[in-house]
Amino acid sequence: MKLLRVGPVGAERPAVLDQDGILRDLSGLVADVDGALLADDCALSRVRAAVEAGSLPVLDPEGLRTGAPLGRIGKIVGIGLNYFGHAAEIGAEPPAEPILFLKAADTVVGPDDTVLIPRGSVKTDWEAELGVVIGSTARYLESAEEGLAHVAGYVLVNDVSEREFQIERGGTWDKGKNCETFTPVGPWLATADEIPDPQALGVRLWVNGELRQDGTTADQIFPVGEVVHYLSRFMTLHPGDVVITGTPGGVAMGRPEPKPYLRAGDVVELEIDGLGRQRQEFKDA
Amino acid sequence: MKLLRVGPVGAERPAVLDQDGILRDLSGLVADVDGALLADDCALSRVRAAVEAGSLPVLDPEGLRTGAPLGRIGKIVGIGLNYFGHAAEIGAEPPAEPILFLKAADTVVGPDDTVLIPRGSVKTDWEAELGVVIGSTARYLESAEEGLAHVAGYVLVNDVSEREFQIERGGTWDKGKNCETFTPVGPWLATADEIPDPQALGVRLWVNGELRQDGTTADQIFPVGEVVHYLSRFMTLHPGDVVITGTPGGVAMGRPEPKPYLRAGDVVELEIDGLGRQRQEFKDA
Repeated sequence: MKLLRVGPVGAERPAVLDQDGILRDLSGLVADVDGALLADDCALSRVRAAVEAGSLPVLDPEGLRTGAPLGRIGKIVGIGLNYFGHAAEIGAEPPAEPILFLKAADTVVGPDDTVLIPRGSVKTDWEAELGVVIGSTARYLESAEEGLAHVAGYVLVNDVSEREFQIERGGTWDKGKNCETFTPVGPWLATADEIPDPQALGVRLWVNGELRQDGTTADQIFPVGEVVHYLSRFMTLHPGDVVITGTPGGVAMGRPEPKPYLRAGDVVELEIDGLGRQRQEFKDA
Repeated sequence: MKLLRVGPVGAERPAVLDQDGILRDLSGLVADVDGALLADDCALSRVRAAVEAGSLPVLDPEGLRTGAPLGRIGKIVGIGLNYFGHAAEIGAEPPAEPILFLKAADTVVGPDDTVLIPRGSVKTDWEAELGVVIGSTARYLESAEEGLAHVAGYVLVNDVSEREFQIERGGTWDKGKNCETFTPVGPWLATADEIPDPQALGVRLWVNGELRQDGTTADQIFPVGEVVHYLSRFMTLHPGDVVITGTPGGVAMGRPEPKPYLRAGDVVELEIDGLGRQRQEFKDA
C-alpha cells in the first residue's frame, strides 16, 4: 500500500493511493498514519481490505497539499557515508561500522514544501535517501534478517545538510542536519510488501533540472537489514522511528570547486523507484 | 513553582509541590506538564493562583513513583565539554563554540528509575547536568538575554553516556548517548522565577555514596542564555524542547586508570541546588 497524509500543515488527514492510482480518504478508518497504525496489524488489514473493496471516499488531489506521510515521528536516525560512491567522492574511507547521527522530527516537512536556507549558510547541500520506517520495537536484534523484519515501510527523504555547520563548526554532524525544514519526507509511505528488495532501488536527484545524483541502493555499504540490526545494539527503535540510510554520490560537497551549493530560487527534485518524487523550492530563511 | 509528573510509567499525572512542600494534584487543572502548558501564560497563571490558594487536592507521596517532570518532550539538545573543569580533566581544549549533540526523547526516564547498562558496554559513565526547558519558540535570537527569556524552567538531568560507543566506534557522539533509559530527568521542573541565577548552582553526584562530581554552573564555558542564543542559529527550539548544558569535572572518563565505569548494582545519586535529587540503581540490559 501507498499511505499518505494530505491537507494543510498540522492538519493533514490520512489517505491512500489505491491500485488504480486514485487518492482515497482514510480518515474514517484510522486516526493517522503513524507508529501506532504501523504497529497494529489488525488496523493495517482493515485498511488493506477497504482499499481492495474500493469502498473508501475518493479525494480530489487538485490543490491538495501532500504532507509527510508519517505523523508523530519518534526519532530520525541518520546513517552517514553509507554508499561506496559517496565515500569515494569526498575522499573518505568506507566506514568500518555505521556512522550514526540524529535529526529532530521537527525538521520534517512535506515532499513539495519550501526548504529554508539558514541565515549565514554558504554550504547548503542535498542528499536523496531511502528512509526506513520502523514498525515494531527493535532491541538487541540477532541478525540483519531480524532487522528487515522490523521494517514497516519505506519513504523518500531529502536529508538536507549544511556542510559548514556539519563539519567546520566543531562537534558533531547534528549541527548541520537540524535546521528548520531540512527533512522533506514523502510523498507516500510504501509498505514493505511493495518493496521486495530495498537494495535494488534507483535513487535520482536533480537541481534546476540537471541530474546530480543517479545511484542505486545496491551501492550501500551497510544494507537496510544490517543497519537496523546494528542500531538495535545502541538504541531501541520504536514504531514510527525513521532510519535514513545514507546518500549515493553526487552531492555538492563532492563536486570540484566552485561547489554548487544551493541558493535561494534553486529547485531540487528527487525520486526513488517505487517511492514517488519530491520537488522543493529553496528560499532564504 | 515546582512542577512534577507522578504515577506509573506512561500514566503520569501532573502535580505540583506547594510552598510548604506538599504534593498536590494538578490533573483537574491541566492535561500535562508539557510544552503546551509552558507556552501558555494563562494556564500557568491559573496553576500559580490555585497553588497559592491552597485549593488543589493533596496527593499522598507514599509509594508514588516520580516520573520525568516534562511530557511530550520534543528534542533534547546536548552541549558537550561546556565546563572548564571537565574539558581539562579529559585533556581537551575548551571549545571555541558550543559542541552540539542530540538525545532522543525516548531515552528519558524518571529521576529514580532503573538505568540499564547496554549489553557489551564496558564504559558506562555519569554526567550530572543542568537541563533547560524551552518555553517559547526560539529562532535566530539576537542575544544571550533573549536566549534566557525563552527559558521556561530548569530540570536536573543525568546525561548517562557510554564512552566506547560515543568515541571509539566511529561517527558522532550520538551513538553513546541514546541507549534506552540513558536520560533520567527530574524530580521537578523549577519554573525560571525559582532560579534567579542559573550560573550559580552547585552540581553534585555520588556513586555508591562517594562524591564524584562537586561543581558549579559558574564554571560553564557558555552560559545558559548564550547556549540558547547560539543554538537558535542552527535549529529552531520549540516549547517542550530541553537543552542539557554539559557536566562539570568528575566523570569516570576523567579519572586515572582503572577508570571507575558503572557496573550492575552501582547506585548513582545526584543533585543541583533548587532542582532536587535523583537516585538510580544501574542494572544490566
